[in-house]
Amino acid sequence: MPDLAVPQPYLIDACQYCKWSQSIFEELREGGVDAIQVTVCYHEDFRETVENLIDWKRRFASFSHLIMAARSNADIDAARQTGRTAVFLGLQNASAIEDDIGLLGILHELGVRVMQLTYNNQSLLGAGCYEAYDAGITRMGREVIAEMNRLGMLIDMSHSAERTTLETIDLSARPIAITHACPSAWHPVARNKSDAVLRALAARGGMLGLSLYPLHLKGGSDCTLESFTEMVARLAELIGAQHIGIGSDLCQGQPDSVVEWMRNGRWTRGSADLGTGKPVFPRQPDWFRDNRDFGKLRAGLERRGFAATEIDGIMGGNWYGLFRDAFAPEWAA
Amino acid sequence: MPDLAVPQPYLIDACQYCKWSQSIFEELREGGVDAIQVTVCYHEDFRETVENLIDWKRRFASFSHLIMAARSNADIDAARQTGRTAVFLGLQNASAIEDDIGLLGILHELGVRVMQLTYNNQSLLGAGCYEAYDAGITRMGREVIAEMNRLGMLIDMSHSAERTTLETIDLSARPIAITHACPSAWHPVARNKSDAVLRALAARGGMLGLSLYPLHLKGGSDCTLESFTEMVARLAELIGAQHIGIGSDLCQGQPDSVVEWMRNGRWTRGSADLGTGKPVFPRQPDWFRDNRDFGKLRAGLERRGFAATEIDGIMGGNWYGLFRDAFAPEWAA
Repeated sequence: MPDLAVPQPYLIDACQYCKWSQSIFEELREGGVDAIQVTVCYHEDFRETVENLIDWKRRFASFSHLIMAARSNADIDAARQTGRTAVFLGLQNASAIEDDIGLLGILHELGVRVMQLTYNNQSLLGAGCYEAYDAGITRMGREVIAEMNRLGMLIDMSHSAERTTLETIDLSARPIAITHACPSAWHPVARNKSDAVLRALAARGGMLGLSLYPLHLKGGSDCTLESFTEMVARLAELIGAQHIGIGSDLCQGQPDSVVEWMRNGRWTRGSADLGTGKPVFPRQPDWFRDNRDFGKLRAGLERRGFAATEIDGIMGGNWYGLFRDAFAPEWAA
Repeated sequence: MPDLAVPQPYLIDACQYCKWSQSIFEELREGGVDAIQVTVCYHEDFRETVENLIDWKRRFASFSHLIMAARSNADIDAARQTGRTAVFLGLQNASAIEDDIGLLGILHELGVRVMQLTYNNQSLLGAGCYEAYDAGITRMGREVIAEMNRLGMLIDMSHSAERTTLETIDLSARPIAITHACPSAWHPVARNKSDAVLRALAARGGMLGLSLYPLHLKGGSDCTLESFTEMVARLAELIGAQHIGIGSDLCQGQPDSVVEWMRNGRWTRGSADLGTGKPVFPRQPDWFRDNRDFGKLRAGLERRGFAATEIDGIMGGNWYGLFRDAFAPEWAA
């Protein structure tokens, strides 16, 4: 039993999309995870996103001994005090707000706290990372950034293109996040982020959540924990450890049809080619298979020589700090 | 009574958005208009567009002695033979297909024959003419162009940005249209088109529909018929009279709240500034106030020295030819 006099470090994962079940919620508790952000929209429109919110209401009711709905940091602490995992709801695409800026306020009131401005493709707001050209933030995009800032909804640029991301960092009054990606200097794929983006992100108080999705990892499913923690060390030199967190992108238990849907949505009559091979979920590295493995990651960071306070930040404390500011309803920039 | 042995020239207007009523339909008949394309979507999503289609079904039933639904050129001829005006349904925005390429086939089956890829702003397909930057056709945009070509749905780029328009002309297997705009060489506003666009359009068999909306006219509401026909003469030198038609953009009887909605949609919490003044419908030039005034335009073109065959083409024959190819269900490019 932990010594209650000594505050335990937070363990927060800023991006998961598992096939949710009692056993996964039990693994979250076994792994000591205080909070996760889960995705409720990839390609869904508003009405379909609401259906996903209804599913989460059912889960919160059915598994109230394991998880609870979270809207602010107070809920992270409440969850911890009651031995549960706090679940923040987020959108990986702006499809949920359709062409209606008013839907942001509605979704915020329904508990949504994070939104990506783009998911791979061009959205009404900006360009995704798989578009051939990137004209940056659109007319509507500027309006949406201001409205998210006003509401206290965290802007996430994980799947966005470079110029669109840089402009958003600049336009946003609040710090933004890239909840799940890795540095492209380590593994150069379209989904990973350049040093220029990472520097600008951190300079404005933002954070990168380190993805553990094999396509983002050097060596893929065979990426070693040593290679990963070496990357984290270099990243900490570049932007500071306080701007780093975890965003595992864990998609545990999802069938391959889901990754096909993620790529193709409803926008093509064919199959999108991302240059990343067949649409199948790759095997997780053996040092991060599910929510019980965060301890291995912590141990790896310790072996790499990170200080305990740095590790506490990376494993959750940094997200706790960013969320506090990001979700505050009134922001005086 | 016309001599039935001599074929009467067609009179076709490729863009109108009036506040439809019996009196406007009667004016169409009085003006001898054989066919019009009417807008059933500016910002509407699929479901809202369907509601507009229902409104048109009601009009076709209520005013079946004046108008009829049109899906192909055979309907233009059928309308003429029965003393009615053929009405083609079109979308000025891709909002109606949301993010779902499958909705194109559904809307085509419901009678939609024209779609703009963008309306002023960035869409999921490309950039509108009021965006600061234009990255051209998106991933989904390429798919939609191919699908519209397959179905026989005319691509309209009236409200699109320059690069997006040029790429579309290049990508489309079928000729495309700019149904309602003027040359920017005559009146340089964002909605008018450069010589480069007009040349490329015509080189691939496409057409420009001349707008009679005052903001597109040199001198605005006070534009003279002489200035207009002089512009047409220069345009005919540039691209050939066979690539010119009429797309009046007539918005007769609409309240100013409609132009405000056209500009702002649901994408801003403020008011879009187009640099074109307050959102009010400007007064029409006195030589084109409604559907009974096409004769004045024809007389103006005669005075400017156009040949009768050229005028017949501009007033409707050219659209008749383009529509024949554009709406053909099977296209061997």
